[in-house]
Amino acid sequence: MLNYNAEYEKYLKFFSQQLNIALKSFDNIPQNLAEPMTYAIIDGGKRVRPVLLFATAEMLGLSLDDVKEFAIAIESIHSYSLVHDDLPAMDNDDYRRGKFSTHKKFGEAYGILAGDGLLNFAFEYVLSKDNFNMLDAKALKLLAEYAGISGMIAGQVLDLANEKSAVISEQILYSIYENKTAKLLMCPLLISSIKSNGKYYDELKELGLNIGYMFQISDDIMDAEQSSEHIGKTANKDQVQDKLTAIKVFGLEGAKERREYHYNKCLACLDKMQNADFLYQFVKKLYERTK
Amino acid sequence: MLNYNAEYEKYLKFFSQQLNIALKSFDNIPQNLAEPMTYAIIDGGKRVRPVLLFATAEMLGLSLDDVKEFAIAIESIHSYSLVHDDLPAMDNDDYRRGKFSTHKKFGEAYGILAGDGLLNFAFEYVLSKDNFNMLDAKALKLLAEYAGISGMIAGQVLDLANEKSAVISEQILYSIYENKTAKLLMCPLLISSIKSNGKYYDELKELGLNIGYMFQISDDIMDAEQSSEHIGKTANKDQVQDKLTAIKVFGLEGAKERREYHYNKCLACLDKMQNADFLYQFVKKLYERTK
Repeated sequence: MLNYNAEYEKYLKFFSQQLNIALKSFDNIPQNLAEPMTYAIIDGGKRVRPVLLFATAEMLGLSLDDVKEFAIAIESIHSYSLVHDDLPAMDNDDYRRGKFSTHKKFGEAYGILAGDGLLNFAFEYVLSKDNFNMLDAKALKLLAEYAGISGMIAGQVLDLANEKSAVISEQILYSIYENKTAKLLMCPLLISSIKSNGKYYDELKELGLNIGYMFQISDDIMDAEQSSEHIGKTANKDQVQDKLTAIKVFGLEGAKERREYHYNKCLACLDKMQNADFLYQFVKKLYERTK
Repeated sequence: MLNYNAEYEKYLKFFSQQLNIALKSFDNIPQNLAEPMTYAIIDGGKRVRPVLLFATAEMLGLSLDDVKEFAIAIESIHSYSLVHDDLPAMDNDDYRRGKFSTHKKFGEAYGILAGDGLLNFAFEYVLSKDNFNMLDAKALKLLAEYAGISGMIAGQVLDLANEKSAVISEQILYSIYENKTAKLLMCPLLISSIKSNGKYYDELKELGLNIGYMFQISDDIMDAEQSSEHIGKTANKDQVQDKLTAIKVFGLEGAKERREYHYNKCLACLDKMQNADFLYQFVKKLYERTK
């Protein structure tokens, strides 16, 4: 019988240990680079991506050690994307995870450089792992693709380009959400799959995509419904910036229906896999979350 | 007998062909990401780093094909570093290579994203190469280290942190120049060495370091002596920003002596290697350059 909370705590604890090991890499770099990088990655809240990575790895019979460097890499990339996204020239957000955003705390130049540092570090850390092998290379290639110019960065650009646009298109919305949000959530599932020679690859790809859609639409709903204090970042930003969101395309009730639709898609994927109890619960909590 | 100019043209032409192949990767990404990325990498002037890579590869008996993806990767990283360095929060420079800097042309948000895109693309491109093998992994690891938080990015931070500083330290200056400039110039030499199983590794490391010092001190001298029109970027910036430069530490004549000192160090390294005729001429031209 699955003890969900105990498993989650196990993954968080393991990630925290791994992060402490990784942060030792910052001991010999300039302090005014180490500080904003550490600040940006240290308080990561739910650690959705590492937990997805670990849970998928265990589901597929891998050990947590088999994927530990990728947990750091994915979270580094996630953190850099938030730091750069919060910059004045981008979303211009002073708060993140209930505290000052990195550039607000350390200045804009250090925000830019800390973001660059975290992105570069993701690759450096995996390439430096013991016994780096060809499966690691294949998994790292996927991360580079999904995080890069035909993945997350493309999503950021599309997001930016569709601000204040008169065009309200479901197709464009889904293209933004696939790239901006879903691709980096697919990485932990697919990296674990690659590391176990491609087991459940197609099912996990479909699952990750729908987790991504559900996750981003939930963010839109929370941005519209909740206070800044509750969600730990500036609320109602989307409307102020006139972003293309699920709310704008489907309305609030319509967005909630889309969230449910993608939740059901997730469940259908999970039904095709064995030992998916933890992932099933994890997706359910993501669906029900209010922050 | 070496025909230096013909060899240089051969390397430039090969790089240009490879860049055209690489730019095909931008065909399916959002146009407003492809445009600033292309703009940032397309007019690269002398292509110092790719030419160093190719010449070293041939000196060591490799073919240009053996290192072609690394030429793109190094130049992508060099280009991203310039794009981010020119941003208003960093060096705030409106001109680069005789044209508008990327953020000035496309806006600051696209400057940030194009830089992120080029950095990520460097890794993606090498990881996607045909027959990626463990020597490629080792070479890519070196690139990640030298370009990253214990290399070029550290150098940028040190450079920034020592602006307007009352401390005039030769040791700090050399630490900045080693990281900010030399490490990315060492990469092409060391990557070719790694790809030929470590041949002349120590000699090439020492050579690259001294090329880096000579190159950066030359930049300082040109910034102080030449017009913006001549060097294709804003001149006399260092003094205006009160940067820690070789001029500030050694004075103009002293800086010229340091340039000569590192040139002689380069020659001593080159004397230890066979088939180094092209590199010898290349270093000599770098020493004599006025832009």
